[in-house]
Amino acid sequence: MAWLRALARFPRSSVIKDPFSIQPLSFSTSPAQPTVAGRFAGLRPTVPGKEKPRVVVLGSGWAGCRMMKSIDTNLYDVVCVSPRNHMVFTPLLASTCVGTLEFRSVAEPIGRIQPAISHAPGSYFFLSRCTALGPESHTVQCETVTDDASSASLEPWKFQVSYDKLVIALGAEASTFGIHGVEEHAIFLREVHHAQEIRRKLLLNLMLSDVPGISEEEKRRLLHCVVIGGGPTGVEFSGELSDFIISDVHDRYAHVKEYIHVTLIEANEILSSFDVRLRQYAMKQLTKSGVRLVRGVVKDVQPENIILSDGTKVPYGLLVWSTGVGPSSFTRSMELPKSPGGRIGVDEWLRVPSIPDVFAIGDCSGFLESTEKAVLPALAQVAERQGKYLARLMNRIGKAGGGHANKATNIDLGDQFVYKHLGSMATVGRYKALVDLRQSKEAKGLTLAGFVSWFIWRSAYLTRVVSWRNRFYVAINWLTTFIFGRDISRI
Amino acid sequence: MAWLRALARFPRSSVIKDPFSIQPLSFSTSPAQPTVAGRFAGLRPTVPGKEKPRVVVLGSGWAGCRMMKSIDTNLYDVVCVSPRNHMVFTPLLASTCVGTLEFRSVAEPIGRIQPAISHAPGSYFFLSRCTALGPESHTVQCETVTDDASSASLEPWKFQVSYDKLVIALGAEASTFGIHGVEEHAIFLREVHHAQEIRRKLLLNLMLSDVPGISEEEKRRLLHCVVIGGGPTGVEFSGELSDFIISDVHDRYAHVKEYIHVTLIEANEILSSFDVRLRQYAMKQLTKSGVRLVRGVVKDVQPENIILSDGTKVPYGLLVWSTGVGPSSFTRSMELPKSPGGRIGVDEWLRVPSIPDVFAIGDCSGFLESTEKAVLPALAQVAERQGKYLARLMNRIGKAGGGHANKATNIDLGDQFVYKHLGSMATVGRYKALVDLRQSKEAKGLTLAGFVSWFIWRSAYLTRVVSWRNRFYVAINWLTTFIFGRDISRI
Repeated sequence: MAWLRALARFPRSSVIKDPFSIQPLSFSTSPAQPTVAGRFAGLRPTVPGKEKPRVVVLGSGWAGCRMMKSIDTNLYDVVCVSPRNHMVFTPLLASTCVGTLEFRSVAEPIGRIQPAISHAPGSYFFLSRCTALGPESHTVQCETVTDDASSASLEPWKFQVSYDKLVIALGAEASTFGIHGVEEHAIFLREVHHAQEIRRKLLLNLMLSDVPGISEEEKRRLLHCVVIGGGPTGVEFSGELSDFIISDVHDRYAHVKEYIHVTLIEANEILSSFDVRLRQYAMKQLTKSGVRLVRGVVKDVQPENIILSDGTKVPYGLLVWSTGVGPSSFTRSMELPKSPGGRIGVDEWLRVPSIPDVFAIGDCSGFLESTEKAVLPALAQVAERQGKYLARLMNRIGKAGGGHANKATNIDLGDQFVYKHLGSMATVGRYKALVDLRQSKEAKGLTLAGFVSWFIWRSAYLTRVVSWRNRFYVAINWLTTFIFGRDISRI
Repeated sequence: MAWLRALARFPRSSVIKDPFSIQPLSFSTSPAQPTVAGRFAGLRPTVPGKEKPRVVVLGSGWAGCRMMKSIDTNLYDVVCVSPRNHMVFTPLLASTCVGTLEFRSVAEPIGRIQPAISHAPGSYFFLSRCTALGPESHTVQCETVTDDASSASLEPWKFQVSYDKLVIALGAEASTFGIHGVEEHAIFLREVHHAQEIRRKLLLNLMLSDVPGISEEEKRRLLHCVVIGGGPTGVEFSGELSDFIISDVHDRYAHVKEYIHVTLIEANEILSSFDVRLRQYAMKQLTKSGVRLVRGVVKDVQPENIILSDGTKVPYGLLVWSTGVGPSSFTRSMELPKSPGGRIGVDEWLRVPSIPDVFAIGDCSGFLESTEKAVLPALAQVAERQGKYLARLMNRIGKAGGGHANKATNIDLGDQFVYKHLGSMATVGRYKALVDLRQSKEAKGLTLAGFVSWFIWRSAYLTRVVSWRNRFYVAINWLTTFIFGRDISRI
C-alpha cells in the first residue's frame, strides 16, 4: 500500500504544524482485492520438533470453551473455528430477554477465556464455519462467516486448517419435529441474537397494542406470549416474563397491562427431569404468577395462530420455542459412527473411534452403543465436564509426547470419562427456584424449593460466570434491576 | 377472546392441583385481525372543561424529550409520536462503538423521562411516524413503525391524533451532499443502531483480517477506518477509535495490530468552531495517537474505495460519515414557512407563525429571516435549551387557560427565546479533551485543553445524563473499561 507508507514518511513535526498541508497524492490506485495469487490459503501441518502441535476446536459453546480454558498452551497451539467470537452463558440467557440482565453480561469473548488465542503466534480464532472434515489428511475445510448486511459485499473466504488434534464441539440444533411454520414464526432461545429478537418483539408488541384503534382482540393477540416446551428453559423464560409483567409492565405500560398474558404449552410433564414435588411447586408458582399452563401438542404454526393437534387455534403475538435439541444438519451429514439419537459416536475417552486424533464433546456427541453407556443429556453441565476432562486428557497426551498427528497411538490415556450428575436448578420467577440434588430421576436425594433455592440458584450461577468482568456486571445488573426496575428502551 | 375468558373461568385451586387436566377446548377460532369496524382510529379532539388539553410531540430527540420532561402534566396530557421509544444521549454515542460504554447506557426510555406517558390515562407514546400535518383541523396523521424482520407480517397501522398544541421536534438528517454511494456504504453516527453497526463491522473486519490467506493489501483495506468530517463527532470517534487500537487491539488482536489505521478526512478545518489553539492541540493529539489527518473532498464512495476530488483512491474497511446535518425530507416536504437553510421557520417564541398552536424546536427549526436572528447551530445544547424554554412557555399558556386549541390568542407569552452559548467540548482520546468556553467564534474567553478538560468533559456529561440509572451505568462502564479493558464480544 504505497499510499500508507507515503503518508508515514512525512516527518511528524511537519504533520503537527499543519497536517492539512499534506496532499495524499500518493494513495495507491491498485485494486485491493483478496488475492492469494496461488498461495496456500490456510494453516499447514505443524512440523514436529520445530512447532507445537495444533489443537483445532470447532465451536465455541460450553464444551469447546471449557476445553480451551484448561488446555496447556505451552504444549499446544489452539485454533478455534466458530461463527461467534464469544461463549453464551446460556443459563442466564432467559433473563436478558426482559432486561433483567444486559446481553453483554452473558457473553464471554473467547479471547478472555483463552488469552493465548489473542496473541500467541500460533493460536487463532477464526470467525468461520467448518464446511467439511478431511480426517485422512488431518485437515478441516472452513469458510468465513459474514452475516452482516453491512458486509454483504464480502464473499465468504474459503481456507483449510491442518490439525494435530481435532475437537468437534459444534453443539446441537433446536428441534422443531418438522412442524410447519416453526422456523419462520417461532423464536428459539439459544443465542444472544435470539434473546435480542424476543426483547425487541415483546417491546414492539407492547407499544403497538397501545396504538389507537387496534381492536380488543388484536391487542390480546399481540400481547399473548406463548412458550412451547416445559423444560427448564421454557419454565425459566415464563417465570422471567411474568416477573417482567408484574413488576414492570403494570407500571410502565399501564394502558395495556390487562391484555398481556403468558401461556406455557407442553405435551407431557413440565420439568420432567425434576422431582415430582418440585414439579408441583413449579406449577403452583407459575400459575400463581399468572402463567397459564396448557397441555397440548402443536400441529401447525401460522403467522398469528398456533394450531394444536385437537384443532384448537391459539392466537399469539410472541412465540418462543424451547422443546429441546437434536443433532445439527452438519452433524447428521458427517460420515462418522453415530450414537443412539444420531449424535457423533465417541468411546469412553471421548474419541471418535476409527479416526485418529479426533474427539467430540458436548451436545453434538454421545457414547457409542458399544460402550454400553447411556447417551448423556444435552446439558451445560455435561458439556462443561467433558471439556474439562478432554483438556486434561490432551495435556496428558501432550506431556507424553503424543501431541502431533498420529503420535498418540501407544499412550496410556488414564481414566475414562465418567459423568456424575450434580443436580438440576431452575428459577420459576418471583424470587423462587427449584434445586434438585438427586443424581438421577430415580435416585433419592435433597430437593429444595423456594427463596433459598432461588438464592442458591443465583449464587451458583454467579460463581459459574467465567470472567470477573461479567461476574461484576451480572451482579450490578441484578442490583440495578432491583433498584430501578428493568430497562425498556428498544434499541 | 372466548378462549381467554374460558381459561380464566377455571377455579385457581383446580389449576394448582393439576393444571394439565385443563384441555383448552375453548380457544376461539375467530380470526384475530386488526379491524376497527368503522370506528374512528385515533385520538379525538379534547373537550375543554372536561379533558386536559393535549400536547402532541413529534420526535424523541434532545428538544422533544427536554420539553416533555418539564411540561406540567397537571395542565396537559402528553402524546409522543416517534419511531424510537428512547432518547439517545448523542455526545456519548461515539464511545459505545468501541465498547467503552454499553449501548444501553446512552439510551433513555421516554417513560423514564416523562413517567406520565407510561400510566396517565390521557398520555401516550406511539411507536409511529408522522406522515402528514393537518393544521386546519388540528390533527396529525400517523403510521406505526414495524422495522423488524420478525414483524414483517404486521401491516403499518394508520391513525390520526388531534392536538391542542403541536411540537415539531423531528430533528435533522445526516447530509450526504448528494455524493454517490454514501447512503449504501458509509455508516452515520446518530442512532444507537448506527453505533451497533459500526461496532459489529469493526470487530468483523478485525477477525476477517486474521483469516489465513487474506492478502496483505486486503488486510490493510479491511482494517483501514476512515472518518469523513472533522467536526466534534468525527474527531471524538477518531479519538475513541485510536484509544481502542492502542489499549485493546494491540493486546487482543496482536496478530493484526500492525495493519489497523485511522484516517480522518476533512475538506476544511477540523473543529472549525473551536479556538485556533485548541484546533492545533487537537491535531497534535490525534496525530500523536496515530490518526492520519488528511485534507480532501470526497467525490464518490465505492464498496471498497473512496474517490477524492483529486482522483486519489482510498481503500477502506470501515467508513463513518459525520459531515453535519441538514433538513430531513419530511421537513423539506412540509408546506410551512422556512428559515434560511430550509428548516421550519419559527418566530421569537418558537411558534410556527400563521399556524395556531404549532411550535418547532431543535435541529428541524430555525429563526425566520423576519426575526432578524441567526439560525442557531444544530447542537444538543440548542435543542435542550429550546425544549426547556418551550416547556415553560406551554406551562405559562396552560396556567393562563390557553391550553386548548385556538385558545392561546390573547395570552402574554413573556420573554422571547434567547440562546446563550455555554461553550463547546470535545474529547480527542487518551484522557485529553478540549473545552472552549467562548460564547462565539469571535468572542474572547477561557479555553482549556488536556487532562483537566477531559475530566471536565466526563463530569459535565455524566451530570447531563438524564436518569440516575444511566448515570450509574455510565460511571460503572467507565470504571470497568478502565479495569478490564473494552468488551470485544460481537453480539
